[in-house]
Amino acid sequence: MTTNPTPEEIAKAVAAEEAKRVNLPAGEAVPAFLKVAKQLLPELTERRLAPVAIVAAQPQPDHPLRFSMQTLFSGRQLEQKSWTEGDHFILDFGGHLTGYLSFRIVPTGSVADSPVRLRLTFGEVPTDVAESFHPYTGWISAAWLPDELLTIDDLPQLWRVARRHAFRYVKVEIVAASRRFGLRFEQVTAHAMSSATSEPALLPDSYPEWIRQVDLVSQNTLRDCMQTCFEDGPRRDRRLWVGDLRLQALANYATFRADSLVKRCLYLFAGLPRSDGLVNGCVYERPVPTYADTTTLDYAALYCVTLQEYVEASGDQETGRDLWPVALRQMDVILQNVDKAGVFIDTGETWCFIDWAFGLDKSAPTHALIVFALRRMLRLAESIGRGEDVQAYPRMIELMVGAARQHLFDASAGLYTSGPARQISCATQAWMVLADIPESPEVAQRAIRNAMQRNDAVKPITPYLYHYIVEAMLACGMETEALALVKSYWGAMLDIGADTFWEAFDPLDPLTSPYGDIHANSYCHAWSCSPTWLFRAKGLGRPAPV
Amino acid sequence: MTTNPTPEEIAKAVAAEEAKRVNLPAGEAVPAFLKVAKQLLPELTERRLAPVAIVAAQPQPDHPLRFSMQTLFSGRQLEQKSWTEGDHFILDFGGHLTGYLSFRIVPTGSVADSPVRLRLTFGEVPTDVAESFHPYTGWISAAWLPDELLTIDDLPQLWRVARRHAFRYVKVEIVAASRRFGLRFEQVTAHAMSSATSEPALLPDSYPEWIRQVDLVSQNTLRDCMQTCFEDGPRRDRRLWVGDLRLQALANYATFRADSLVKRCLYLFAGLPRSDGLVNGCVYERPVPTYADTTTLDYAALYCVTLQEYVEASGDQETGRDLWPVALRQMDVILQNVDKAGVFIDTGETWCFIDWAFGLDKSAPTHALIVFALRRMLRLAESIGRGEDVQAYPRMIELMVGAARQHLFDASAGLYTSGPARQISCATQAWMVLADIPESPEVAQRAIRNAMQRNDAVKPITPYLYHYIVEAMLACGMETEALALVKSYWGAMLDIGADTFWEAFDPLDPLTSPYGDIHANSYCHAWSCSPTWLFRAKGLGRPAPV
Repeated sequence: MTTNPTPEEIAKAVAAEEAKRVNLPAGEAVPAFLKVAKQLLPELTERRLAPVAIVAAQPQPDHPLRFSMQTLFSGRQLEQKSWTEGDHFILDFGGHLTGYLSFRIVPTGSVADSPVRLRLTFGEVPTDVAESFHPYTGWISAAWLPDELLTIDDLPQLWRVARRHAFRYVKVEIVAASRRFGLRFEQVTAHAMSSATSEPALLPDSYPEWIRQVDLVSQNTLRDCMQTCFEDGPRRDRRLWVGDLRLQALANYATFRADSLVKRCLYLFAGLPRSDGLVNGCVYERPVPTYADTTTLDYAALYCVTLQEYVEASGDQETGRDLWPVALRQMDVILQNVDKAGVFIDTGETWCFIDWAFGLDKSAPTHALIVFALRRMLRLAESIGRGEDVQAYPRMIELMVGAARQHLFDASAGLYTSGPARQISCATQAWMVLADIPESPEVAQRAIRNAMQRNDAVKPITPYLYHYIVEAMLACGMETEALALVKSYWGAMLDIGADTFWEAFDPLDPLTSPYGDIHANSYCHAWSCSPTWLFRAKGLGRPAPV
Repeated sequence: MTTNPTPEEIAKAVAAEEAKRVNLPAGEAVPAFLKVAKQLLPELTERRLAPVAIVAAQPQPDHPLRFSMQTLFSGRQLEQKSWTEGDHFILDFGGHLTGYLSFRIVPTGSVADSPVRLRLTFGEVPTDVAESFHPYTGWISAAWLPDELLTIDDLPQLWRVARRHAFRYVKVEIVAASRRFGLRFEQVTAHAMSSATSEPALLPDSYPEWIRQVDLVSQNTLRDCMQTCFEDGPRRDRRLWVGDLRLQALANYATFRADSLVKRCLYLFAGLPRSDGLVNGCVYERPVPTYADTTTLDYAALYCVTLQEYVEASGDQETGRDLWPVALRQMDVILQNVDKAGVFIDTGETWCFIDWAFGLDKSAPTHALIVFALRRMLRLAESIGRGEDVQAYPRMIELMVGAARQHLFDASAGLYTSGPARQISCATQAWMVLADIPESPEVAQRAIRNAMQRNDAVKPITPYLYHYIVEAMLACGMETEALALVKSYWGAMLDIGADTFWEAFDPLDPLTSPYGDIHANSYCHAWSCSPTWLFRAKGLGRPAPV
């Protein structure tokens, strides 16, 4: 059971966490790294899509998404209609995309003697266009709400909405127009943008259909997040986070193979450090690549993992060597938070993310994640011939593994605990397993199973942590349960009509929002794209040979 | 006393008038004329203005404009302030302008982690920015309301508002912004655009100060309407009307001398005729020069007058000869509406404008206006050597003058009447005098005085008709009353703080609107710019030599 705190509780908790953090200023930007990032700026490819249909949202109280979409007429028929002030219609482009909308707006019946005012609302899901955004109850900025109020002079005009949106649906409302003429919309076009250039084949027919579909929707999620960087969400945030990047990079190696985009992202982080040398949790690309003062300790460790996996997947050892000092520096800074007994201490001064689950104690999962990263650093050092730099790591790993077994393991319960209150969470078990801390696969499996079953364990709330639970299950021989978890989580999104996988999804309460208002949610989010990697690279769900 | 009908009454009356009209289709465009117009497209000059002050609107129930503006701090201090969601401020650029707004919007305190949503409201007068536009009660499109809802991504950004506005004030509201950062506005700049390139000297000190100011405000009105054509109002409508053009052209000859802009406008009308050959009452320049299906019979006659005056002012006989067939065609078509007795019959099929005064009978003033135009056609024919084309005109003038004296003059009242109900209006007297129909100046003066004084006479409602009353007064030796009328009308606008002269002004009810909502009014309108011509070209108010 996931707890559902109120927006006020969340805002208060976030503020309390933020108050503890030390927002070190930006370090010196590294022009050489930023130059490499700039050289790798990809050209985006464009798919032009006509609306498939004009639809109406039908209330469906029993449906998790509250509405179903009913076709009124085909997209081709739109050019035969004329509209006047007060009218509205909903375009359906048949699937999710990231990009722009353009149309020709033409007066009918008479010359246009005034401008026209339109409200366009871009919807990833039916609730976006079926419900009013107001009153807005979210605690993040309402400036993210995906609508536009446009005033268009001098009709007829070919109009391209300047801002990029993430959408399948567009509600067009004629807010104000002169009574002397009507309006026709011609050449309505969605310009779907992505830096993905290939289209991988579907998984073979021998896979169950649900797996083939989850795989496809994973890829669509990744594709729509692949712009000039791996964005976390094309609707909202639209920035590059380390944690999302790792999952996107993995999914990419199994599908689109835009490896140079991974490289660009690694250089962007390297080019914009914090003054203590840690990479930012996220960076902004525009208006110029910018340091974001959100540093995330677990993400800094995952930067090293992502670099190691990039070198392994691409064979690009040169980048591994070039960015090696950055990775080393992450571990140096992070290990300052490990005490003499080998236990990671979460002071709160640098944020540990792990998951959005309310009240989650981050110390034990971060402890384990550091061990996971140290092991990957050894692999990276070996592959690029820098073993001498990490000679202290094996002893640190041994110390931290021992400390976890000794101080964090509750042998009677068969669970790893976190923090002074010995909190039990799925996050802790998953990362302990991924860090190979349990003495045996049996101990590992029991820890995960116990946490997933116990009512008092803090459960995952983000697809991001769901991913790590699945990855941990695969690491300790729980293939069947891993597949069941993917089915019950990503499969459930698919069942309720997801075109892309969401930022936040609670199967028991599908329309919950971590922001206090579902209209602030993002329905195409990088960190939920990993199933395609689980299927294609990890062999999850692969049918037995006949 | 001006009657103030309700918006519903006005809308109904307009609809009834429109129902009677015959909207003939566009005639064939004349590419040769449109080519000349295109060659004359002027380059606009730009003045860059910083805000003079940040102001607050103070309610002033006794003031005709309901608010006064109080300075909060100087424009230079704006860059020291930081703003957050829910804040607003009002920029004052110190005077009216037509153009664009740009600013740099910069996050303060932290990196911008979200877009910002702003509402900008462009105000020509305090009521525009001091009051909400909603609920809007006007009967013309709310799309004209001068506000913009902007969402700006990727701060810091240098932002230029894409749409042109007419304004002195700009209210900036921070509708939505993340709580993580504040907002600073830097380099706030108004880009004032005009095709006027000179700045005439003020009238000499020997003139009364009010005349010097009315002259200046007239020029500012004209300047802000002078764009790529002589627009009627830079805030609303923004099109080229014949009636406005005549007054703008006259004011221009006395001030900016952008004669080639007059020529461009004459060619635009000539290039876009109605199928019966009449010029349109107005044309649109954008997206391409376009026929507007609003043909105005009195304006078609004034086209001839405007051409004659252009040739006289500029000496450009070549244009006079080139457009002569167009002018001839206007009179040919118009004279089809004059019966055998020499009386103009207003069938309603082609609109006669004359004035917006509610219930005004247009037949007699239009009759006189046609005579006025015929006389000017004789002058034009003479100046370009085409007398043979107008040999029938003197007899037609004689016939129409006689008919007016015989059928329209009420000798006992000393007034000209209009229509079967023998309506008395100021409009009728003014045009009779301008057409030189009265037997003597005494008859002329008495007619004007009588109409201005009688309660049952339909009074003028627009500056446009006020102009013609003043012009008529000057034509029959009523200099003192003409000056008094300018003072009581334009001077009254000046007294209540007009930076430019308005589209509609009733001294007894300054905030009345012909559109049912003062927020639909235009406060810089071409047809109110004529006092500068009255002073400078007609000698009105000229101080006696010492």
